[in-house]
Amino acid sequence: MESGESIERQLQREETRGSYSFDVRRGWRRWRILHPCRGMYYDVKRRLPYYPSDITDAFTYRTIASTIRMYFVNLLPAIAYTLDMYRRTGQFYGINEALFSSALAAVVFSVLGAQPLTIVGVTGLISLFNFTIYDIIVQYDAAIYPQFMAWTGIWAAIFHWLVSVFNACDYMRYVTDFSSESFGMYVGIIYIIKGVEELVNEFGDEGTAAGYLACLIAILYFGTVYGLEHLGSGTTWNPTVRGFLADYAYVVIADTSLWQFATLFWVGFSHFPGNLEATHITRVPVTAPFMPTQSRSWIIDFWNLDVTWVFVALPFGFLLMLLFYYDHNVSSITAQARQYPLKKPGGFHWDFFLLGCTTFVAGILGLPMPNGLVPQAPVHTDSLTIYETDLRIIPTSEPVNGDGSSGGDTRDIRRPIVRAKAVVEQRMTHFLMGLLLIGTMTGPFLTVLHTMPAAVFAGVFFVVGWGSIESNGILQKFLFLHAEARFVQRDEPLLSIPRRKISLFIFLQMAGVLACVAISHTIAAIGFPVLIILLMPLRILLMPRWFTLRELQVMDDFTADNKVVLESLGGKPALPEGSKVEDWGLERKRSVQMRGVPRQRAGSVHR
Amino acid sequence: MESGESIERQLQREETRGSYSFDVRRGWRRWRILHPCRGMYYDVKRRLPYYPSDITDAFTYRTIASTIRMYFVNLLPAIAYTLDMYRRTGQFYGINEALFSSALAAVVFSVLGAQPLTIVGVTGLISLFNFTIYDIIVQYDAAIYPQFMAWTGIWAAIFHWLVSVFNACDYMRYVTDFSSESFGMYVGIIYIIKGVEELVNEFGDEGTAAGYLACLIAILYFGTVYGLEHLGSGTTWNPTVRGFLADYAYVVIADTSLWQFATLFWVGFSHFPGNLEATHITRVPVTAPFMPTQSRSWIIDFWNLDVTWVFVALPFGFLLMLLFYYDHNVSSITAQARQYPLKKPGGFHWDFFLLGCTTFVAGILGLPMPNGLVPQAPVHTDSLTIYETDLRIIPTSEPVNGDGSSGGDTRDIRRPIVRAKAVVEQRMTHFLMGLLLIGTMTGPFLTVLHTMPAAVFAGVFFVVGWGSIESNGILQKFLFLHAEARFVQRDEPLLSIPRRKISLFIFLQMAGVLACVAISHTIAAIGFPVLIILLMPLRILLMPRWFTLRELQVMDDFTADNKVVLESLGGKPALPEGSKVEDWGLERKRSVQMRGVPRQRAGSVHR
Repeated sequence: MESGESIERQLQREETRGSYSFDVRRGWRRWRILHPCRGMYYDVKRRLPYYPSDITDAFTYRTIASTIRMYFVNLLPAIAYTLDMYRRTGQFYGINEALFSSALAAVVFSVLGAQPLTIVGVTGLISLFNFTIYDIIVQYDAAIYPQFMAWTGIWAAIFHWLVSVFNACDYMRYVTDFSSESFGMYVGIIYIIKGVEELVNEFGDEGTAAGYLACLIAILYFGTVYGLEHLGSGTTWNPTVRGFLADYAYVVIADTSLWQFATLFWVGFSHFPGNLEATHITRVPVTAPFMPTQSRSWIIDFWNLDVTWVFVALPFGFLLMLLFYYDHNVSSITAQARQYPLKKPGGFHWDFFLLGCTTFVAGILGLPMPNGLVPQAPVHTDSLTIYETDLRIIPTSEPVNGDGSSGGDTRDIRRPIVRAKAVVEQRMTHFLMGLLLIGTMTGPFLTVLHTMPAAVFAGVFFVVGWGSIESNGILQKFLFLHAEARFVQRDEPLLSIPRRKISLFIFLQMAGVLACVAISHTIAAIGFPVLIILLMPLRILLMPRWFTLRELQVMDDFTADNKVVLESLGGKPALPEGSKVEDWGLERKRSVQMRGVPRQRAGSVHR
Repeated sequence: MESGESIERQLQREETRGSYSFDVRRGWRRWRILHPCRGMYYDVKRRLPYYPSDITDAFTYRTIASTIRMYFVNLLPAIAYTLDMYRRTGQFYGINEALFSSALAAVVFSVLGAQPLTIVGVTGLISLFNFTIYDIIVQYDAAIYPQFMAWTGIWAAIFHWLVSVFNACDYMRYVTDFSSESFGMYVGIIYIIKGVEELVNEFGDEGTAAGYLACLIAILYFGTVYGLEHLGSGTTWNPTVRGFLADYAYVVIADTSLWQFATLFWVGFSHFPGNLEATHITRVPVTAPFMPTQSRSWIIDFWNLDVTWVFVALPFGFLLMLLFYYDHNVSSITAQARQYPLKKPGGFHWDFFLLGCTTFVAGILGLPMPNGLVPQAPVHTDSLTIYETDLRIIPTSEPVNGDGSSGGDTRDIRRPIVRAKAVVEQRMTHFLMGLLLIGTMTGPFLTVLHTMPAAVFAGVFFVVGWGSIESNGILQKFLFLHAEARFVQRDEPLLSIPRRKISLFIFLQMAGVLACVAISHTIAAIGFPVLIILLMPLRILLMPRWFTLRELQVMDDFTADNKVVLESLGGKPALPEGSKVEDWGLERKRSVQMRGVPRQRAGSVHR
């Protein structure tokens, strides 16, 4: 906001463009809370004109590929989380509930969402949330669990609506990689623990042989997906070979089909006649199609809950809202990260309002509440992005023959650089994926799901969990600290700040992560959203006292940095003295410049 | 041999230097067969002066590290091969025989060998050879197997002595990467098949649960060794991270200790209380220390064999000699490859004579015959090599900011380049390793061996087998053919020859490999040395008709190319018109120039 411009002119401009902000206002008008629904109003106003094109733009081949990809990348983890939740909530939440919830969310957000790129569905964290509440309720009376969850959903929905009405999503502009990396690391660790628990459970339920076979399938599934993914994206082989494989154009196909391939292969493997078939392992438990897993009607009789319990559910609903506030909005932001050249704007306030509605419906129907999915949301955008792989020729001043024998000619180094050209922004892929999920709720498809061993889903946990850890900035900085200094490129921005400060930065991140992991294994697990949210004020209010601006600019970056995102979040965050958004994330930017845009892999929670 | 020099002068010079050759001789003197023992005489004459220094040079820290490393890298595969042989020769060859054979070979070759760097021991191929003979003999009378093997050994020894007396090892100078790569690929495939057989066997012997657990241990063992090896040698991570890890100085330690670490870890794992310990899996079968596995005296009563069978053993002995002729000499050559800056000469004729002696002794004692080990022999030299990692700075003409915003300064690319400075050439490591092997034959150590699950050795098969395939030139050329052309560095020599020719080259190699693999699974398996040896005349006599000299120079290289090696092999091979040894192996040389000397990993059969 250039100060030279008059306030009236700026207000006028934002009206026309559909963006909104409070920064240029004075007095009481600065207070977000005094402008109810302003964010939502502008969200709808901004997006509505694009609605027809959201349908017409979908007529490309890419829509079909993306739909199939997203169906698998959404379905498999959802089932994995549900297996865990099913076992630990007295079999209240089953496959039918998870499919219903995913389908509901997909249809609602694809038809009504301001940003249909944000895939919404069942996450591992809602699974953790639900079974922790079960662990608490079961100490009193397990029978009231459905009604209590319904009220948790109702309260959460109310808080969602309050947040959207009073424009509180604006604060998401202050999310930086400091907290989103911590969150990614936390989720990765939790998922790997879940995978191990799934396998341990197999030993208890089906005996030793089944346990070993389950471990075998999970590890080989992980190996297959991980190996193929790296082969395709060309980061594994030795330098010679990698150069051969590094055509990023193949990755979209590879990444889609390798999950399908690996899943089909290992499901088939588990049915191989002989020893394999004879070993009875746990398979996905299914029940009658379109019916709740337990014998109940879809609508929970939430009106039959004692009024004390109704109010006990209030803080739980608030915590659920906090979780979704962070998780859903970060998912949406990463689906609209700056690396994707998006043209159409998003709308955080409106989408959070919608999320309140789905939370409400899921609550009274006894479904796991859906919210924004990482990594599925950014994978969705990625699958719709048109990439071009350019050849980058780095001329060197080194002669062709190192011994100088044939002088003259110089050698140059060839590297592939990926550039994102455009994104097919539309709402049909999300919608079609929702229809496929509804199709999966039918009898024949449930029978297919039942052939899948639970062990494959332990493998899914490993893939998604490790993907999140491996690409995480915390690990990258840790490895930098252990590198031999002389081999680090001289223009590496991390070299310009003291190693002590890098250690402190990742120490603070890991402290947050470990606190969350620790709390997740106690009855206080539902409190973890508070810890995650607390990382934001820690970063914005406290850390500038311990780090110089320059240090933070190198190590940290604003997560919400795409222009179309900031338009909905009330403009750029108030930045520290004298810095521009462009001055942040120096390390990340150098990496993009050197190696091109990082591709979003399905097995990677962090962007 | 410059033609300007007089023959007398050349003869005189070779006398002084201890090298020998037939190339400068005329008439009947050109015939190797008419100069019995000439090769051996020069071998001894050339090496003897270095004998005192072979002992005094050993007083460095590196001797201890190398001894421990070689002990593990020799022992573990030897046990793996023996498990296979034990089961398939009616339990005639057991652990005691394998240890005795390894110790015998180590002591003989370390004390008397002309090239003590060449580690000699029990290979997977002798295992294949022995049990194929068993499969044949068992059709007539299993009881004569020991005597028959003794006579096979006796005949083989006689052929060994004939070969050394008549200087036939000279022909090894014509071995090129064409056949040695094929051999490496063949061995890799056979080892992986052996590993699978080991696991399949577990299902039959100990039931389903044990089978799955064995698969799990083998796969995780493989994953541990492979993962750590790649982490250490820094070829796995993505480019950023790999740069951090690529200090090759750590590899010696990493490579040694990771086998030890992985082995200890997974052996311990198999004894973990609970499900793991309760599952009974096959462990290394041991018998009374220092006694033959079966109740017999150490000396086989070979004089009790029917004379018909004595002569039936003759062709088997010849085939065994053919196998060792190729396998032992190639092992010795790779242990003295050009990449190692060796100062002390070797002696192929003398060593092959010694190998005849050990074959004789092994035969009449009923031991598996030892011969030169790949990859252990080159790993031995590697472990004694003093490497330095230099920083190679490649200046580029690219500005620091790709967008040109801050012009001026240019970025340079930093790469680690490994250079071999010297080798600690001595015979103490080999000798001490022999003493350790004798120690392993005692009761307490056998008890330790008995704690090891057979599944770990299936993992060893996978590590060694895959290492051989992954680094193989056949695979590398195959991947080159599938690379996207624009990302290949312009100075890649393979670009200068037609793709059709590269395909033909690897097709011929794979035809040889697959013929060997196929024959290895029939009763004709003992014939595989003939096929391997036939690749040499195919390459030297036929292939020049189908390929131009330049094409062969790029794709192929003489395996024996170290000066100290050629001195014992009668000088440089007669090369095609107008080419020098330096003109060969263009592709390999470029790789060395770009990335430094390739390190010999324990899990890699091909050099």
